[in-house]
Amino acid sequence: MGSLGELEYPVNDSLSNMGSNTNPLDPEEFRRQGHMVIDFIADYYKNIEKHPVLSQVEPGYLKKRLPTSAPYYPESIETILSDVQEHIVPGITHWQSPNYFAYFPSSGSIAGFLGEMLATGFNVVGFNWMSSPAATELESIVMDWLGQMLRLPKSFLFSGNGGGVLQGTTCEAILCTLVAARDRTLKNIGNDKIGKLVVYCSDQTHCAFKKAAQIAGIHPNNFRVIPTTLSSSFSMSPEALRKTIMADVDAGFVPIYLLATVGTTSTTAVDPLGPLCDVAKDYGMWVHVDAAYAGSICICPEFRHFIDGIEGASSFSFNAHKWFFTTLDCCCLWVKDPAALTKSLSTDPEYLKNKASESKQVVDYKDWQLALSRRFRSLKLWLVLRSYGVERLRGFLRSHVKMAKQFQAFVLADHRFEVVVPRNFATVCFRISPSALLATRNANKGPHHAVLSEIINISNDNNIGTTTRISTPPPPPPLKMVSVNDLNQKLMDSINGSGRAYLTHSVVDGIFLLRFAVGASLTEESHVVQAWNVVKEHADTMLSRYTSQSHF
Amino acid sequence: MGSLGELEYPVNDSLSNMGSNTNPLDPEEFRRQGHMVIDFIADYYKNIEKHPVLSQVEPGYLKKRLPTSAPYYPESIETILSDVQEHIVPGITHWQSPNYFAYFPSSGSIAGFLGEMLATGFNVVGFNWMSSPAATELESIVMDWLGQMLRLPKSFLFSGNGGGVLQGTTCEAILCTLVAARDRTLKNIGNDKIGKLVVYCSDQTHCAFKKAAQIAGIHPNNFRVIPTTLSSSFSMSPEALRKTIMADVDAGFVPIYLLATVGTTSTTAVDPLGPLCDVAKDYGMWVHVDAAYAGSICICPEFRHFIDGIEGASSFSFNAHKWFFTTLDCCCLWVKDPAALTKSLSTDPEYLKNKASESKQVVDYKDWQLALSRRFRSLKLWLVLRSYGVERLRGFLRSHVKMAKQFQAFVLADHRFEVVVPRNFATVCFRISPSALLATRNANKGPHHAVLSEIINISNDNNIGTTTRISTPPPPPPLKMVSVNDLNQKLMDSINGSGRAYLTHSVVDGIFLLRFAVGASLTEESHVVQAWNVVKEHADTMLSRYTSQSHF
Repeated sequence: MGSLGELEYPVNDSLSNMGSNTNPLDPEEFRRQGHMVIDFIADYYKNIEKHPVLSQVEPGYLKKRLPTSAPYYPESIETILSDVQEHIVPGITHWQSPNYFAYFPSSGSIAGFLGEMLATGFNVVGFNWMSSPAATELESIVMDWLGQMLRLPKSFLFSGNGGGVLQGTTCEAILCTLVAARDRTLKNIGNDKIGKLVVYCSDQTHCAFKKAAQIAGIHPNNFRVIPTTLSSSFSMSPEALRKTIMADVDAGFVPIYLLATVGTTSTTAVDPLGPLCDVAKDYGMWVHVDAAYAGSICICPEFRHFIDGIEGASSFSFNAHKWFFTTLDCCCLWVKDPAALTKSLSTDPEYLKNKASESKQVVDYKDWQLALSRRFRSLKLWLVLRSYGVERLRGFLRSHVKMAKQFQAFVLADHRFEVVVPRNFATVCFRISPSALLATRNANKGPHHAVLSEIINISNDNNIGTTTRISTPPPPPPLKMVSVNDLNQKLMDSINGSGRAYLTHSVVDGIFLLRFAVGASLTEESHVVQAWNVVKEHADTMLSRYTSQSHF
Repeated sequence: MGSLGELEYPVNDSLSNMGSNTNPLDPEEFRRQGHMVIDFIADYYKNIEKHPVLSQVEPGYLKKRLPTSAPYYPESIETILSDVQEHIVPGITHWQSPNYFAYFPSSGSIAGFLGEMLATGFNVVGFNWMSSPAATELESIVMDWLGQMLRLPKSFLFSGNGGGVLQGTTCEAILCTLVAARDRTLKNIGNDKIGKLVVYCSDQTHCAFKKAAQIAGIHPNNFRVIPTTLSSSFSMSPEALRKTIMADVDAGFVPIYLLATVGTTSTTAVDPLGPLCDVAKDYGMWVHVDAAYAGSICICPEFRHFIDGIEGASSFSFNAHKWFFTTLDCCCLWVKDPAALTKSLSTDPEYLKNKASESKQVVDYKDWQLALSRRFRSLKLWLVLRSYGVERLRGFLRSHVKMAKQFQAFVLADHRFEVVVPRNFATVCFRISPSALLATRNANKGPHHAVLSEIINISNDNNIGTTTRISTPPPPPPLKMVSVNDLNQKLMDSINGSGRAYLTHSVVDGIFLLRFAVGASLTEESHVVQAWNVVKEHADTMLSRYTSQSHF
């Protein structure tokens, strides 16, 4: 391909090319091709375990396989699907695979998929009520349904003068509420004072908050991060928060927003909502509760206590596209004071004026979100709620927790491993324990001892003393963490490189841990057993290298 | 439904309900239900003309029809689809109807739908390369393809060290680039100076910009709106822009960002990119070109001149979900300097670290957008480009322009109507002309004359003199605009209330105009003829009321 001037598309094709084509939305052709793609995807799910979970391609793989420009003439759906199979599928990391345990799940479902199809088929742009009343009204109804399922206080529901809205992602939910909180304060103290506003979170808060604060123009120096520790399971301390706020207030700053998390990304830690909200209340701050991952399971009565204290918060969100069987993207946000959102985010151009909006009898969701245009997302959530009902949804979620418990039991039963933090939901944080390395070292007073000593490097770092291992092995001498961390990193890379399971990591308090997040819809107990076997096999190989090779 | 304490869901169902359910992603059940929904949507398209285009429901209609809480037990897809038909479809404004001429189109297509299905089926969360290499790489490839089709300067393409990214909406594209521009300047002058930053647009710029500036913390007083006039077809004046900037600079403000538009929402006006970029360049400003609607047609050589001057801009976006057969949402954004975006929008938490990102050999699109999570949007764009090829895409777009020309011809041939501004693309801005009212009045020197005089209200307002009517009727005496505007508003409401066609309005320079935007994929010439007949019939009725009734 040369310069743009050399592009091969005809430039004088305008006369020969007009109106003679099949309609791009011809119903019968839609039917024919639609059925083909349904079969393609059904077969994909059927055979999904044949693919390595984590894509094994190299950067730039696709450029080598595809043309450098779009075709001039149409290509058939048969050709395209064959290319999807041959060129796209190898580059996919299979989030729907039953062997997917990485990050958090993106749990798809038939109902979620069908709802997305219907939304795509109708393809309405539901920015205001008028542009498709059903899109707005179904969303409000479904958000009240879901709020009831979660036993949210009535003040978060439309029926209690709050209300819910579907955002794309938690990032958007945070940014919208932050802007609302910001403007609520600036209205009182003046827009010139934006540099005085301060926001708060913990060191376990999702990075989305830092980014939202950056986008909203919060001064980078005014982003406060409360440290957490392993000893408190990475939960935010209300006392530390209060101290930080008091110091800011004393220094002339204005605290506006606290982000509390139920189910942090690294370890699924839970911040104490009640006490945190009490602190925030004293300073008139907005409290947003981010339960992106763990919100779903609060529909099970035995898990509801994790959001106790929510009545003191200003807003609450969770991602139905994570662990609630609703395909990406679908973040559920409830606010107590919709007017705070709409005061910041409303637009009212002439070309959108209409009688329904002017009557103030309707919700115009464009004023509850960042963008104007919006998809008919409530359809998929509605289909999920109806297709499975509260009963099955609870059942699905509980089955994931049960599988996570099983995996945890495997970990606990193998003395080489430890569970790093208590499991709250369906994610197990574990690692090869320092004591396992020590045991390997002790078992190997042979020719490689010097090498191993070098690798393990005894030191005074004793961070490991506070892990939650239930069985109590003799306390190992402190080890230099970096080596244990390296070993666990290598274990993870080795597992993921096999393509048989995929899990990801985090580092908390200096500890590199592996996260085993159960939640992919297709996962069954046999997959968890198999995943544990994969972990064990790779650990066996890795630990045996210590005893048999000097070049680890 | 009583208080939350009385919710009817069992709270102690945890033992009886675990793991005994059908898998929510069972491939054969997926196949069965998927085929059903394909047929449902195909039938919807087949029968779409049977529905009123603009939904005729009243606010609150759906609440009266649906239960007040989610079901406890599962419901069948048959029941749900029947409810979609009975309760949702009446509340839909049918953007896919061939009789839809409102706002701008959301032109669906089979290819776009199938691409969305595949993306939903894979359901990957492509925040970084690693999380699904194909999602990232296909996006980069497709954005280069499309950039070539538009003959964007190479500096906007990956192959020229720029690059493209798919955003959800133009609102997001604007906010991302604005934040990049803001931070680029603040880095030099200090974060404390955010209150000094000024942004520029015209009074025809989309409301998304005002909202983006608000979100980004630009001081509300620092949002400059350059007035436009009918006489310059609502195009932004580079001279007026320069004067405004100079005054700001003199007053100690810092100009950072100009939003220029190709195809404004009200009248599809085009700002002169070259001269505007020249002005902006003198002040080191970021120039974003919003071609949300009109960008698509610039793939046709005979329309490419509308974006001449783009080489001086910093970024360019258009919505493939508007008039490019790609289902909502899909905004294509190109930037010359991706590093400016990623400097503002990057996050690097431990749990997302991976070797590919660290190698700097890959694109991590999470750092090019507001949110972390992102759907595999490039699939649908890829399917659209391949299924239709450049040839058919040009053909589809040209056929819409041809139909718009035809509609314009109908308007021009009826002396009661006028075209308000020159048609640039496939949108005709028209109205019942003041002279038609006058003619009606003159033809009716009967008993109702006094009433008509009162309605028409001769005044000195002569805004109407500069319209683009090609045939030249005798210049009417000036009329009080409010009455002509009222009449056109009533005409629009009357047409839309019939359900036979749907069009929307704007008000520019005091003139209420009707917008007839051709672009729904199913629209054919017969629909345009029919729509014109509907317009005429309603105008006939309305104008005849002047001569036969006194209670209009």
